Amino acid sequence: MAGPIRPTIADVARAAGVSRTTVSHALNGIGKVDPRTRERVAQAAAELGYRPSLRAQRLRSGQSRTIGLVSSMPVAVGGGPSKLGFFMEVAAAAAETALLHGFALVVVPPLDSSDPPLDSLDIDGAIVIEPDQDDPTTKRLQSRGVPIVTMGPQQGMDLPHVDLRAPQVGRLLLDHLREQGADRIALLMGSGHRSWYVDLAEVYAEFAREHGMPPLVVEADESGGEETGQAACEELLAQHPEVDAICAAVDAFAIGAVRAAAVRGLDIPGDLQVATRYDGVRARTSTPTLTAVDLHLAQAASSAVELLLANLKGTEAAQVVSNPDPRLVPRDSTRTR
Amino acid sequence: MAGPIRPTIADVARAAGVSRTTVSHALNGIGKVDPRTRERVAQAAAELGYRPSLRAQRLRSGQSRTIGLVSSMPVAVGGGPSKLGFFMEVAAAAAETALLHGFALVVVPPLDSSDPPLDSLDIDGAIVIEPDQDDPTTKRLQSRGVPIVTMGPQQGMDLPHVDLRAPQVGRLLLDHLREQGADRIALLMGSGHRSWYVDLAEVYAEFAREHGMPPLVVEADESGGEETGQAACEELLAQHPEVDAICAAVDAFAIGAVRAAAVRGLDIPGDLQVATRYDGVRARTSTPTLTAVDLHLAQAASSAVELLLANLKGTEAAQVVSNPDPRLVPRDSTRTR
Repeated sequence: MAGPIRPTIADVARAAGVSRTTVSHALNGIGKVDPRTRERVAQAAAELGYRPSLRAQRLRSGQSRTIGLVSSMPVAVGGGPSKLGFFMEVAAAAAETALLHGFALVVVPPLDSSDPPLDSLDIDGAIVIEPDQDDPTTKRLQSRGVPIVTMGPQQGMDLPHVDLRAPQVGRLLLDHLREQGADRIALLMGSGHRSWYVDLAEVYAEFAREHGMPPLVVEADESGGEETGQAACEELLAQHPEVDAICAAVDAFAIGAVRAAAVRGLDIPGDLQVATRYDGVRARTSTPTLTAVDLHLAQAASSAVELLLANLKGTEAAQVVSNPDPRLVPRDSTRTR
Repeated sequence: MAGPIRPTIADVARAAGVSRTTVSHALNGIGKVDPRTRERVAQAAAELGYRPSLRAQRLRSGQSRTIGLVSSMPVAVGGGPSKLGFFMEVAAAAAETALLHGFALVVVPPLDSSDPPLDSLDIDGAIVIEPDQDDPTTKRLQSRGVPIVTMGPQQGMDLPHVDLRAPQVGRLLLDHLREQGADRIALLMGSGHRSWYVDLAEVYAEFAREHGMPPLVVEADESGGEETGQAACEELLAQHPEVDAICAAVDAFAIGAVRAAAVRGLDIPGDLQVATRYDGVRARTSTPTLTAVDLHLAQAASSAVELLLANLKGTEAAQVVSNPDPRLVPRDSTRTR
C-alpha cells in the first residue's frame, strides 16, 4: 500500500520559480526573503499540499521530540497473563503526559529476547523503571548521551528519579500483617539489588528487631516469575511451618505463595496471610484477592515525564520528585477478622 | 543534566586527516575509499567514540523505523480504573513485535484533550484501533502519506486490517446467554458505527429473528463510559422489566449494567445475566465477574504490526489477516446453573 506521492521542496521551488534554499528560507522564516516571493512560495506550497519533512526539521533542531520508556524487568515478572503489568500501567499515564507536552512516547516493554534494541532508538531522553544496581540499561543510554530519569532510584547511581517511597510501602505491608495477627512474617524477595528490594530488606530487618521476630528472608529468581516464587515458598513453608504470613516483593511471587499454600493445604488467610506491593491485575484477580499497595503509579509516571522534560530543557529543577504517600489496599488474603 | 559532548563527523575527519565526505563513505561502505584510509577513519571514529547520527541516517533512508499505535476511543471507555484497557493490552504485544523487527512503537492512547497530536509524530506507519466510520484519524494519517493498518475494519474504508471476527464474537455471546436460560436479551450498544457495533447489531437482529425474540436495542454515548451505560440500562429495565439478559458491546457499559441491576434490586445472574466482549480488567474484577470473550488480542496486535511492516516494505501480502477463533470465557455474571 503506497501512500500518495508526497510533494518535495523541489516541486515547490519549481512551481514558485525560486531555488530550494529560498523555499526553505521562506517557509521557515529565516534569512531575507522578499515578502512577495515569500507569499508566492507559501501559495505554491499550499496548492501542492507540501509539508516540510518532520525528520529534516528534527535533524536541524537536534530533537526527536520522542522519549523512551524502558522496562528493566524479565517478562515473567513484568508481564503476567495479558502482559498488563506495572510497566504498561506506567506507560499509559506517561504516554498521555508526554503527548500533552508535544512529545511522543516509545515503549520498550520486557522482551523475551535478551537485549532491547536501545541503540537504535532515536530518543531525546528515557525513563527507566526500577533498574537493578547492575542494570546495563542506564549506562548504555548514558554512553549515547541520552538523559535519563528512573522510577525508583538506581542503587549506586546518582540519577534524577521519582521516589516511590519504598520504605513507607514496606512499613505499610509489615505493620498491616502484624495488625492482622501475624507474628512470624517471612520476606519473599527477588534476587538482585533493585532499590525497592534493598529498602524493603532494611525495613524488614528493622521491623524484625523491633518486634523480636526472627527474620526469615528467601530469594527467588525474577526470571522464573510465579513458578520460582512458588518453589521458594514451598521450601520455606516446609522448613518453617511456623510462618504465618508472607510479604512478597513482587506480585508474581505472591501468586506463587498462594499456589504454595494450596499445595501444602494451608488456608489463606486463616493459616497464612499474603501481601504484596503492586496493586495490579494479579492482586485484583487472584483467588483470594491480594492485599497490596496503591503506589499512585499514574502520578509517578507523569512526574517522571515532567522531570525528564525539565532536564531536556535544562531547567533548574529538583532532581528527585517524591510521589504521594502510598496507601494500603486490604483484600481477602489478609482479612483475618 | 547535559550528556557528554558527542563527537561529530568533523572531529573524526580532523583526526583522520580526511574530508567529512570520506569519513561518511568510509563508515557507511559507500563510494570508493582506499582500504588503508577506511581503516584510519574507523580507528579515529572508535577512539573518539563517534557514532553516526541516527537521525541523519534516517533522513537519508527516509525511514524513522517507528510506527504509531493510535486509539480511537474516548477516555471513559478506553481507560478504566488504571487505564489498563484494550488499548494498552494491544500496545504491550505490538511494542514487543515491533522491537523484534527493529521498529519502535509510539503509543497514542485515549486523551482527555480532544485531538491527539498526530501531525507531529514522525512515524513510518500507524495501527489504528477499531476506528469509527467517520473517525478522522485514518484520513489525517493518510493525507500525510502514512500507511495504515486497522484492528477491526473501518466501515466504508478499504484499509488493510486484522479481522477480530466480530460476527463470531456476537454469536458466542448471544448463544451462551440463551443456553443459560435467557430469552429476552437486550443489546446495549455504543453510538457510532465502529464495525464491531455494526456487525454485532446485524448478528443480534438475525438471532432475534431465528428465535422469535422481540429485538431490543439501546444506545449509550461512549464518552460517558460506565455512567451512560448505567443510565441507559436503568431506563431499559424500567421500561422492559421482562429483559433477562444484557449483551453489552463494551465492558464499560457492562459495568453500568451491573450497577443498574443493583439500583433496581435485581440479582445477577438470577434475575439478569450480563455479558460483554472484552475480557479485560473490568470483566475480571467486577462483582460478579463478567462473562466475556478471549479475542486473542496479543496475537491480533502482532499480526497488525507484521501486516503494517509488510506494507511498508511493499511486500505482496494479503491485506486482511484473520485472527483465530474467539473463545467464550464464562464467568459468574451468566452462571445460572
